[in-house]
Amino acid sequence: MESDRLEAFSDGVFAVAITLLALDLAVPGPGHGQLGYLLHHHLPSFAAFAVSFLTIGIIWVNHHTLFKNFARIDRTLLFLNLLLLFFVVCIPFGTSTFAAYLPAGHFDASLATAIYQGVFEGMSLSFGILFWWAIRHEHLKIALTPAAAKTAVIRFGIGNVGYTAAVGVAFVRPAASLAISALVGIYYIFEQTPARSSAPAAPDDPGNPGDPAATG
Amino acid sequence: MESDRLEAFSDGVFAVAITLLALDLAVPGPGHGQLGYLLHHHLPSFAAFAVSFLTIGIIWVNHHTLFKNFARIDRTLLFLNLLLLFFVVCIPFGTSTFAAYLPAGHFDASLATAIYQGVFEGMSLSFGILFWWAIRHEHLKIALTPAAAKTAVIRFGIGNVGYTAAVGVAFVRPAASLAISALVGIYYIFEQTPARSSAPAAPDDPGNPGDPAATG
Amino acid sequence: MESDRLEAFSDGVFAVAITLLALDLAVPGPGHGQLGYLLHHHLPSFAAFAVSFLTIGIIWVNHHTLFKNFARIDRTLLFLNLLLLFFVVCIPFGTSTFAAYLPAGHFDASLATAIYQGVFEGMSLSFGILFWWAIRHEHLKIALTPAAAKTAVIRFGIGNVGYTAAVGVAFVRPAASLAISALVGIYYIFEQTPARSSAPAAPDDPGNPGDPAATG
Amino acid sequence: MESDRLEAFSDGVFAVAITLLALDLAVPGPGHGQLGYLLHHHLPSFAAFAVSFLTIGIIWVNHHTLFKNFARIDRTLLFLNLLLLFFVVCIPFGTSTFAAYLPAGHFDASLATAIYQGVFEGMSLSFGILFWWAIRHEHLKIALTPAAAKTAVIRFGIGNVGYTAAVGVAFVRPAASLAISALVGIYYIFEQTPARSSAPAAPDDPGNPGDPAATG
Repeated sequence: MESDRLEAFSDGVFAVAITLLALDLAVPGPGHGQLGYLLHHHLPSFAAFAVSFLTIGIIWVNHHTLFKNFARIDRTLLFLNLLLLFFVVCIPFGTSTFAAYLPAGHFDASLATAIYQGVFEGMSLSFGILFWWAIRHEHLKIALTPAAAKTAVIRFGIGNVGYTAAVGVAFVRPAASLAISALVGIYYIFEQTPARSSAPAAPDDPGNPGDPAATG
Repeated sequence: MESDRLEAFSDGVFAVAITLLALDLAVPGPGHGQLGYLLHHHLPSFAAFAVSFLTIGIIWVNHHTLFKNFARIDRTLLFLNLLLLFFVVCIPFGTSTFAAYLPAGHFDASLATAIYQGVFEGMSLSFGILFWWAIRHEHLKIALTPAAAKTAVIRFGIGNVGYTAAVGVAFVRPAASLAISALVGIYYIFEQTPARSSAPAAPDDPGNPGDPAATG
Repeated sequence: MESDRLEAFSDGVFAVAITLLALDLAVPGPGHGQLGYLLHHHLPSFAAFAVSFLTIGIIWVNHHTLFKNFARIDRTLLFLNLLLLFFVVCIPFGTSTFAAYLPAGHFDASLATAIYQGVFEGMSLSFGILFWWAIRHEHLKIALTPAAAKTAVIRFGIGNVGYTAAVGVAFVRPAASLAISALVGIYYIFEQTPARSSAPAAPDDPGNPGDPAATG
Repeated sequence: MESDRLEAFSDGVFAVAITLLALDLAVPGPGHGQLGYLLHHHLPSFAAFAVSFLTIGIIWVNHHTLFKNFARIDRTLLFLNLLLLFFVVCIPFGTSTFAAYLPAGHFDASLATAIYQGVFEGMSLSFGILFWWAIRHEHLKIALTPAAAKTAVIRFGIGNVGYTAAVGVAFVRPAASLAISALVGIYYIFEQTPARSSAPAAPDDPGNPGDPAATG
């Protein structure tokens, strides 16, 4: 089974979700105060929109890079991908809840932030499971040594640590929690998916002769 | 006529419908009570969202698997596919109606649930007709024996029994009706489309020599 | 220039527009009266939704059939296609305006209906221009005789007559106007695009030896 | 890395954004005054919708033409493309803010117009950077002489001048500012992307023998 249509459907979901994000930027309209005041009051919306846009954009780039390296897709991968998309379509909900409740302060601001970060964490966790499963069942076109695979899973999954921390920080300083997700997003701009970063370790690479794992 | 563009358009509709589902998760915002209370009050929305997401996801997986096995597409299939999509785009409407009226209780809760399940039933019925028509007019790439075709249609169409039952149960216990659709969705996670499950019975399979239908 | 990406973008617009249509089906929710009453009051929405869904579905089928027969795409076709899409994205607006104002009666009902039908007419006219332009500049893969081309343009463009009539009828009997668009949609289910129906008249067809136009 | 999936995802975003634009055309419904009056009051919405539709349409056409000429896509281009899409998804927000606040007059009308034009400027600037970067790092399939490349970047980026002027004019005559964006859109209907307009200067073109830059 080829990955073409899985990618087309996923791209559709990513495209709709990333565009719907911007619907929440709308200000109430004349009669609710000066536009400048409304925009200033709307700052959490803009900040959350930027972070969520970056996050969905990163997921798309990594999804794109990962599935390009998949030799085959089976039914389990279809459903693991659906699980990932489940959290992706929840991102606009998490974003708007955070933007609406952050100014409310108190426990509601923390709860809304935790929900927002929890959606990111669910996305990150299901992407990590998908990646781990694909490597374990050898869906990748390139062979990874056990050591390279382990490193790949760790580097790919490191976002989970950030999002879990962000859920915790949500109950102490909600606004700081948003900064953590932004940093995770920026990390993934520079960190490529393991399938690419491990390419130099592929079988046709004469290097690493002394690495025992390279023969595994 | 190839199925590429039919699949692209259908994937677009699936992707938009599955992402729009999440728009109804939005809580009213500060000033309508504590967020925790609002979320608790919103539980039917979350449950219905999960079931509808699963259902559209399953339809996509089965649509994907089925059309991959289609050798050709004719104008009738285009319109049968449009009929299927008609019910797919109604799923967000059914979901939000159910979520809004379940807490209202009385006849309104039952009516809303019956509409929701009726949309699923319409989708399931039109998918069944599409499948039956494709097999009958030999659109599939693999040849099915009459017996295998019959089994395939029955196994593929069994969801209709579930959804019809769910419409009936809607008038007795609306919430239980939702559980039935969830179970139908879970059934289709494990039940593959007939086109695949009958692959071992394809002509190049030396087995089943004593099966008279295998020569039909 | 190939038509692949033009089709992909158009399919995206068709898919989003056809799915957004269903958003207007939403009833106001508990506290606005019995659900049965609201649904009954909502009948114009459901009827308009069905007609608009059918219309966008037909446009997609014809778009699909037509562009499959295009040998090449130039910049003019890209913009004629954009003009067609302009009216397609207006269909949800026309549909909801019609559904909201039909029950209002008087001039507002007629004006809303005329807007709705005017959007259909704009779509139909721009599709007709696109088709006429493509035939005139020989973008089709198959050669059409001048007579066949003329017949094709007339049969393809006949919907314009229906929609123009519907705009007029809007000011007399708005509800009857909707029936006209439904009939035009049903006509196009059976009427194929000229590119296909004229296939038997293609050069490799030994028939029609006495038709002087066949040598033109 | 091929550009197929980048184009598919971008097309999805363009398609959703261009279709969502039309959602803001909706008039308030009966009970808010005569439909004719509401439509008249809604004129800024219709004008802004037309300009934004034209603009997104042009971006799509140019994106389509440009990426067709890309020999390869790297990670930097993926992110530059995301930056472009960031501003594309903001266009519906800019459009609705402009449409809502233009009638309000005073500073709010100017601020809303400046935001709208600022979104266009951000889009235009990021598209210009993407184009400049692609030429500089030789991603194009055809070789451009330094002189042709310089001309191409200038002609492609000239929209930035228009949008920057429009931001300034927003504070003097907001409505006139809209006319400037419309003119920029019309300019790009006729001005093709440099990759195409420079085709006659490609290596297999015997012309321009005396142009020293042709050997660079």
